[in-house]
Amino acid sequence: MLIVKKFGGTSVGDKERINRVADRCIADYKEGHDVVVVLSAMGKSTDELIAKAKDINPNPPKRELDMLVSVGEQISVSLMAMAMAAKEVAAVSLNAFQVAMHTTQAYTNARLTSIDADRIRAELEARKIVIVTGFQGVDKADNVTTLGRGGSDTTAVALAAALKADKCEIFTDVDGVYTADPRIVKNARKLDVISYDEMLELASLGAGVLHNRSVEMAKKYGVELVVRSSLNFNEGTVVKEDTKMEKMLVSGVACDKNVARIAVIGLQDQPGVAFKLFNHLANHNINVDVILQSIGRDGTKDISFTVAADAVDEALAVMENHRQTSLICEKIDVERNIAKVSVVGAGMTSNAGVAAKMFEALYDAGINIKMISTSEIKISVLIDAAFADGAMNAIHAKFIG
Amino acid sequence: MLIVKKFGGTSVGDKERINRVADRCIADYKEGHDVVVVLSAMGKSTDELIAKAKDINPNPPKRELDMLVSVGEQISVSLMAMAMAAKEVAAVSLNAFQVAMHTTQAYTNARLTSIDADRIRAELEARKIVIVTGFQGVDKADNVTTLGRGGSDTTAVALAAALKADKCEIFTDVDGVYTADPRIVKNARKLDVISYDEMLELASLGAGVLHNRSVEMAKKYGVELVVRSSLNFNEGTVVKEDTKMEKMLVSGVACDKNVARIAVIGLQDQPGVAFKLFNHLANHNINVDVILQSIGRDGTKDISFTVAADAVDEALAVMENHRQTSLICEKIDVERNIAKVSVVGAGMTSNAGVAAKMFEALYDAGINIKMISTSEIKISVLIDAAFADGAMNAIHAKFIG
Repeated sequence: MLIVKKFGGTSVGDKERINRVADRCIADYKEGHDVVVVLSAMGKSTDELIAKAKDINPNPPKRELDMLVSVGEQISVSLMAMAMAAKEVAAVSLNAFQVAMHTTQAYTNARLTSIDADRIRAELEARKIVIVTGFQGVDKADNVTTLGRGGSDTTAVALAAALKADKCEIFTDVDGVYTADPRIVKNARKLDVISYDEMLELASLGAGVLHNRSVEMAKKYGVELVVRSSLNFNEGTVVKEDTKMEKMLVSGVACDKNVARIAVIGLQDQPGVAFKLFNHLANHNINVDVILQSIGRDGTKDISFTVAADAVDEALAVMENHRQTSLICEKIDVERNIAKVSVVGAGMTSNAGVAAKMFEALYDAGINIKMISTSEIKISVLIDAAFADGAMNAIHAKFIG
Repeated sequence: MLIVKKFGGTSVGDKERINRVADRCIADYKEGHDVVVVLSAMGKSTDELIAKAKDINPNPPKRELDMLVSVGEQISVSLMAMAMAAKEVAAVSLNAFQVAMHTTQAYTNARLTSIDADRIRAELEARKIVIVTGFQGVDKADNVTTLGRGGSDTTAVALAAALKADKCEIFTDVDGVYTADPRIVKNARKLDVISYDEMLELASLGAGVLHNRSVEMAKKYGVELVVRSSLNFNEGTVVKEDTKMEKMLVSGVACDKNVARIAVIGLQDQPGVAFKLFNHLANHNINVDVILQSIGRDGTKDISFTVAADAVDEALAVMENHRQTSLICEKIDVERNIAKVSVVGAGMTSNAGVAAKMFEALYDAGINIKMISTSEIKISVLIDAAFADGAMNAIHAKFIG
């Protein structure tokens, strides 16, 4: 079996943890499996490098920032290879150049374009454990790039796809994917299996276990993902194609507290208004989530939408720049302390009344709903962030127990 | 003019120093020159990385050690590019992959084989300052290698040769090449010019300003070297082909205190004995310096030689392994606290009596000579290390003043 195992920065944060990860990989290797390990930078080392950069240049060129922070994973992988060598297991560390991990040239937020897996295959055939730097790539001109948030997960899934691995294990500090964040909802329980689509909704909704980029890629290439704990040997949660098992109505409740709502009031009611607004934001790489359009007073319309809380100031600045030209409106309102609470489940497509049940839970808890958004397998509501934990517990209790 | 400027780890040890180096490079750039900067790892960072490695594996694989320590220079060059960007000068950092700095596969001690200067030329044509990682390379299979001691000097000279640079400035913490180490000999004075050959003898004799690998390469490709201080704007010492100027009899006095002498007593007097002895040592990459063979008692012969003090234990172990087979002898003696003091000067080839004058200086100072070795442009003596400083002062006073 060919297994790709990905460990995050906390799992390789010091010598003891590096040795623990090494042991875990060696166990698979000694059972006869081919093992590819993807590592993030140790502990807080990426943050430390960024702080060093900003001390020298508060606004460092992104190309140079990628050149700098990419050393973090190179340190992890070489130390891991040394740890394995100390245990008398042949291992080799490889960086993005060495595995030809090609990406676009979007520094600090590049997307993978291709991987040449020949080098890795050759090393595996020589019975070595192959340890690859996560998070980083190279563009066509051999400049170093990084993949942005969730980058190491994406590296692991991409390698699993390129190598046609039997599975891709993502190690984290929780036992798997839960029906809700167990730190907030006491009754939350671990799921054994979840479909790619449900996982995608949960990932993009702030469940925080896996990033949606990696889930999207796993779905695209049919890579079987396993989310499991690096602290124990529990089975974890398998993420794969829709299974035949009887479905739970709702697989999980997720919450994203990093949300702000912007309301554009009194826009002219004519074609292209929405396009222009969101095109301006897209040009500045500002991701917009929930969008709601309603009829305003006197033949105008209102558009409300949410952005990540840390993008709201840039979004407002971009919009302000166009108030005199393509974005003529009465006023722009902003609400910063918003949470998005969602229920996700493939089961809800064939079950009426899920939305009603969710709203009932919130009503019983006395929580006011600001906006509602639905898709085939999820229902999201925006509420005051102060009530987020209460809302999650109320909804979880209603659907799951 | 195309100038290659190399700065060592101390010169880029912190933010202030990085900014100072940036200013210095920008000054040349703003005069219209093309500037290529070669940097070592910051301050003690290489030592720290090695300590981290040894903590995980006391005997780390050399391939992985190179993979690890090479991050040090990548940090320096990216931070330098950021510092220049903060001063609104276009700069780009490049690592060994990006400039195709190809080497042999001798990890931790690789030798440069070729450089593809196209990328650097393109960046210079775009009027960027190009900042290149010193000390590191890649082998044919794209594994990371490092060049060993003096590696960054060698990188700088190799780049200067590949780019046909007008000069290669090596920045250090002294004003240039001195007639002797000014910390030991008070009257030592700075040389304005020195030939490659004299510099080679001084470098290999422990003058410590430049490594002989870089001087050899400069000589081979006719690269004009300038050794100068990173702390001031003094002119420094130019190292170039033999000049027509009137020669000083002796250009410098050098001392290497890191020497041990091994004496092999009572070897059989037959062909191949010396070959076998030094072949064993060469197979373990142990460099032998001064060799002296003399006739022993009863038809045997004695061979004495020196090695670096930190290689003496390995040398003895290697020899011990062959005592029963190819290295039959009466006994092996070792003297650990030896210094080699040398005078160097192209002028001495045409001047009789230089050796006599040197021995007189030592005799006057009451210092016993253990071994003597001479070449066309140098005379070296081995003495007790305790007398090294006294010997240097006595010899310097005799020849230079």
